[in-house]
Amino acid sequence: MYALKKAFAKYFPILDWGSRYNSKTLVNDLVVALIVTMMLIPQSLAYATLAGLQPEVGLYASMLPLILYAVFGTSSALAVGPVAVVSLMTATAISKMAISGTSEYLTAAIALALISGLILLVLGFLKMGFVANFLSHPVISGFITASGLQIAAGQLGPVLGIPLHGDNFLEIIISLWNEIKHAHFETTVLGLSVVVFLFFLKSGLRPLLRRVGLRDSLANMIVKVGPVLAIIVTTLVAWSMDLLGSGVRIVGEIPGGLPTLSLHIPKINLLAQLLVPAILISIVGYAESISVAQTLAAKKRERVDPDQELIALGASNIGSALSGGFPVTGGLSRSVVNFDAGAETPAAGAFTALGIALAIIFLTPLLYFLPYATLGALILVAILSLVGFGELLETWSFSKADFTAMLITIITTLTAGIETGLIAGVTLSMLLHLYTTSRPHIAIIGQIPGTAHFRNVLRHKVATDPEVISVRFDESIYFPNVRFLEDFVNDAVAANPAVKHFILECRAVNRIDTSALVSLEAINRRLKEGGIAFHLSEVKGPVMDQLKKSNFLEHLTGKVHLTHYGAVSSLNPDMAANTLNAAE
Amino acid sequence: MYALKKAFAKYFPILDWGSRYNSKTLVNDLVVALIVTMMLIPQSLAYATLAGLQPEVGLYASMLPLILYAVFGTSSALAVGPVAVVSLMTATAISKMAISGTSEYLTAAIALALISGLILLVLGFLKMGFVANFLSHPVISGFITASGLQIAAGQLGPVLGIPLHGDNFLEIIISLWNEIKHAHFETTVLGLSVVVFLFFLKSGLRPLLRRVGLRDSLANMIVKVGPVLAIIVTTLVAWSMDLLGSGVRIVGEIPGGLPTLSLHIPKINLLAQLLVPAILISIVGYAESISVAQTLAAKKRERVDPDQELIALGASNIGSALSGGFPVTGGLSRSVVNFDAGAETPAAGAFTALGIALAIIFLTPLLYFLPYATLGALILVAILSLVGFGELLETWSFSKADFTAMLITIITTLTAGIETGLIAGVTLSMLLHLYTTSRPHIAIIGQIPGTAHFRNVLRHKVATDPEVISVRFDESIYFPNVRFLEDFVNDAVAANPAVKHFILECRAVNRIDTSALVSLEAINRRLKEGGIAFHLSEVKGPVMDQLKKSNFLEHLTGKVHLTHYGAVSSLNPDMAANTLNAAE
Repeated sequence: MYALKKAFAKYFPILDWGSRYNSKTLVNDLVVALIVTMMLIPQSLAYATLAGLQPEVGLYASMLPLILYAVFGTSSALAVGPVAVVSLMTATAISKMAISGTSEYLTAAIALALISGLILLVLGFLKMGFVANFLSHPVISGFITASGLQIAAGQLGPVLGIPLHGDNFLEIIISLWNEIKHAHFETTVLGLSVVVFLFFLKSGLRPLLRRVGLRDSLANMIVKVGPVLAIIVTTLVAWSMDLLGSGVRIVGEIPGGLPTLSLHIPKINLLAQLLVPAILISIVGYAESISVAQTLAAKKRERVDPDQELIALGASNIGSALSGGFPVTGGLSRSVVNFDAGAETPAAGAFTALGIALAIIFLTPLLYFLPYATLGALILVAILSLVGFGELLETWSFSKADFTAMLITIITTLTAGIETGLIAGVTLSMLLHLYTTSRPHIAIIGQIPGTAHFRNVLRHKVATDPEVISVRFDESIYFPNVRFLEDFVNDAVAANPAVKHFILECRAVNRIDTSALVSLEAINRRLKEGGIAFHLSEVKGPVMDQLKKSNFLEHLTGKVHLTHYGAVSSLNPDMAANTLNAAE
Repeated sequence: MYALKKAFAKYFPILDWGSRYNSKTLVNDLVVALIVTMMLIPQSLAYATLAGLQPEVGLYASMLPLILYAVFGTSSALAVGPVAVVSLMTATAISKMAISGTSEYLTAAIALALISGLILLVLGFLKMGFVANFLSHPVISGFITASGLQIAAGQLGPVLGIPLHGDNFLEIIISLWNEIKHAHFETTVLGLSVVVFLFFLKSGLRPLLRRVGLRDSLANMIVKVGPVLAIIVTTLVAWSMDLLGSGVRIVGEIPGGLPTLSLHIPKINLLAQLLVPAILISIVGYAESISVAQTLAAKKRERVDPDQELIALGASNIGSALSGGFPVTGGLSRSVVNFDAGAETPAAGAFTALGIALAIIFLTPLLYFLPYATLGALILVAILSLVGFGELLETWSFSKADFTAMLITIITTLTAGIETGLIAGVTLSMLLHLYTTSRPHIAIIGQIPGTAHFRNVLRHKVATDPEVISVRFDESIYFPNVRFLEDFVNDAVAANPAVKHFILECRAVNRIDTSALVSLEAINRRLKEGGIAFHLSEVKGPVMDQLKKSNFLEHLTGKVHLTHYGAVSSLNPDMAANTLNAAE
């Protein structure tokens, strides 16, 4: 009974904070929800169009997911919903199998949310959040910069009133080059005005507001609500000046009611086609979301549970699918606003969902004249803040390997598309990781005269014995580095014909796997055939326990020595006699 | 000029040993070559049929590759040529695109050798031998056991005189179940007799020979030449008893001349289809070959150069393609015989090639009546020595993770085919590796009273200060484990509300990458927002150099302390005062 209760508390964090909920928290969360709703409406409309869907689908994806996150999530500030990169990944995945605007396209988007949700749920129950580790920082950073560029280039289409095509940045730029002469005048004026206005909001208004004495957080909030102003003004302009007649594309009629809940089980071939994109979306979405959640939690000394977050995001995506939405995740900008506004519990998210529901019921008719150019401009300006080449330079000076991984990720993403780019980046960083871990630091060591200390013979003046080679391996021994160890031993022995004893100092060896065991056995056997005894020293407890499970210790031609000094002095008493301060 | 000479010496090891060659070595190498030739003829015929090719293709693959290995190789004992697992991989790869026995099939096999050779050459020039590290011991061992079972099951076809079909062990067994009632009587008698004879050679004759006083190595050699006897006897039986008339399948006419050298550049679509199998064959072949070469080299305290071995195997495979052969690599059994017989230089391999050439010219007519059942029996008995389930049990007791990887590799290979099995095994072991490295050992540490030593608070009675958390991270910090570190810091801080200083002890941190830097910056920022100073202690020189390349140290809210004891005592002088023996 207690175990059941504990499991319940683990999987339903709402039971914990819900029991402490009171009227003060309620009022606070309601205010926060109002602000975030103001920000979420334009974003969800815009990101739905980025995903190639009708704007209202963005609103559908901004209700149930928020409520489910409030039930299952562990971060009080994370705001889930449509985000830019995941929306682009959605468009990329489903534009291969259906044409934007068709019902097949929407069905595929919903299926993608469902599959992605299930994947996240499974990863959560298996506690496999570590898969997000596949995404090293240079790869995710390069990927987001490159997708940001692709998104920005693509949004020049609606902003200039021209159709742009292409599955990657390069193709979109070529399409832009061919089409720019057909730019639609009224649309361009409107679109660029919004772009300029939003840039002013970001870089001009905020310092201005601060200078007149507003608090930072309030100034930020006004800036964040700016997009709503852009929507209201441009919609009014489009309506009053009859821009529709002059050819400016507007959103038009949006179905006003709340979405009906329904579960569409995708067909097996759709599922097979969507599996790889769904995996990529799940991992990228999770990586983005967990880093936002952890950053905000740390500010309040709260903790987020990485595995429970997988479950919460999984539930959110399944909720999105149930209500006819597309893949969602925790987004940076809204979460920061949520946090700055003072969200105390995940309930703020649930109230935001209520705000969106009210907007669907009452506001959609007002959005009839909303120009697509406005939505394009909103995305364009928002996404450019994600594009950062400065980091590329910083990475260059820090690590050439990471720089290479980042650059290849960017170039592949820009020229071959986001899925290929992401996979190339992940594969490359795994290869580089394998390469680095396959060549750990290893040194032949000798005794610092008069002490029981041993140091690298290449860096220090140390005493060595031609009959004894001491080698220190500065890493756990496992399959990526066993060959390196074997090579090193072979070379060291081939270069020292007088050697009779080989001691491996294992102070830094925290772990060994089966490949290591097989290698140690091979080393022991080869040394034996060359007439050399193989010793180990300073073996840690857990490694010793492991070795005892095999019969390696019975085959070992030498001994396992507690200390390296003990090993050397037992093999050559002269070395011990030299030592003045051996006790240490 | 000197650099050129050095590069020449590096890429042409023959220049080194060639200059020391004399008449004594020559005689010795000639004797070795005779023995190995006796062994290689039946093996190359048999493995060619295993690859779905005409027997003579095996002979073609056993000449030029041996000569090229003699020029480029660094092992004096390695015997390259057709081997079982690579032959099966060849059959698997090309049976998807052509029917065995057609000229398209042969063309694809030759192309596979060429592509595989080029891949090995490129890996060699890029010094990328570390890719073989992808194959952990449990994966390669499970893979070889499972392919061995598949090969053995498949050879029951020729041994029983029935056609067996199937791309994996399971399918072959089902096919066997359906066909066994059609077993051909004379073929079965002949085939099973050879199987029994060969098993007797292996397990009965060797002990017998030893008991009559023969040296181990001589006894082994007689046993290894036994297959030639089986070929001679069964060929004579087939000829004298006119088994052809009774339906026993024989090899028939073998084109007698030496193969003409020619280079077929494969078409682009053939190349695309063969690329993945060629990569797999290259890596598996290299992994097998290098481990044999290293084992034999160690016995004589020689060294093999892993990168040069890639080049030598690459050249051998290109040579095989030029002379109309299929993929080759260094094989265990022949190399051991080569070594036992006393091969002193790679020239022994070149002389073996000469022996095969003579066999093609003079012996092929004699092979007309050689029954396929004999070749099947030869493979069947040879391959069963590779099948080892004992290792599965050993691995179980040593490591559950490695056991899982091995079992999944075996099951997938048996039921879904060798390529899928190999890829599944590699992926799984990479995932497991990532999982283990993503959760390194980490501990909150406290001071052993009266000393400058710090130990895990969970395992030792140590003194701690509620305002200072000390954490020791027992691994380099890089992208697979940064999230774990961040989680640990977040949790530790959330659980200790009084904390004001956080010290990360970095004694075991040998390396940091860009992801680590970003994480350390995030930790620093988050701690700062929680009012906690972030300190580092015992940072190694190379890590400090890395940190200095970034501006992390400028942002750091705490200090970098030389020793952990120094850090703790500077933050809380009480801890220092307690210490009696702090100087150490």
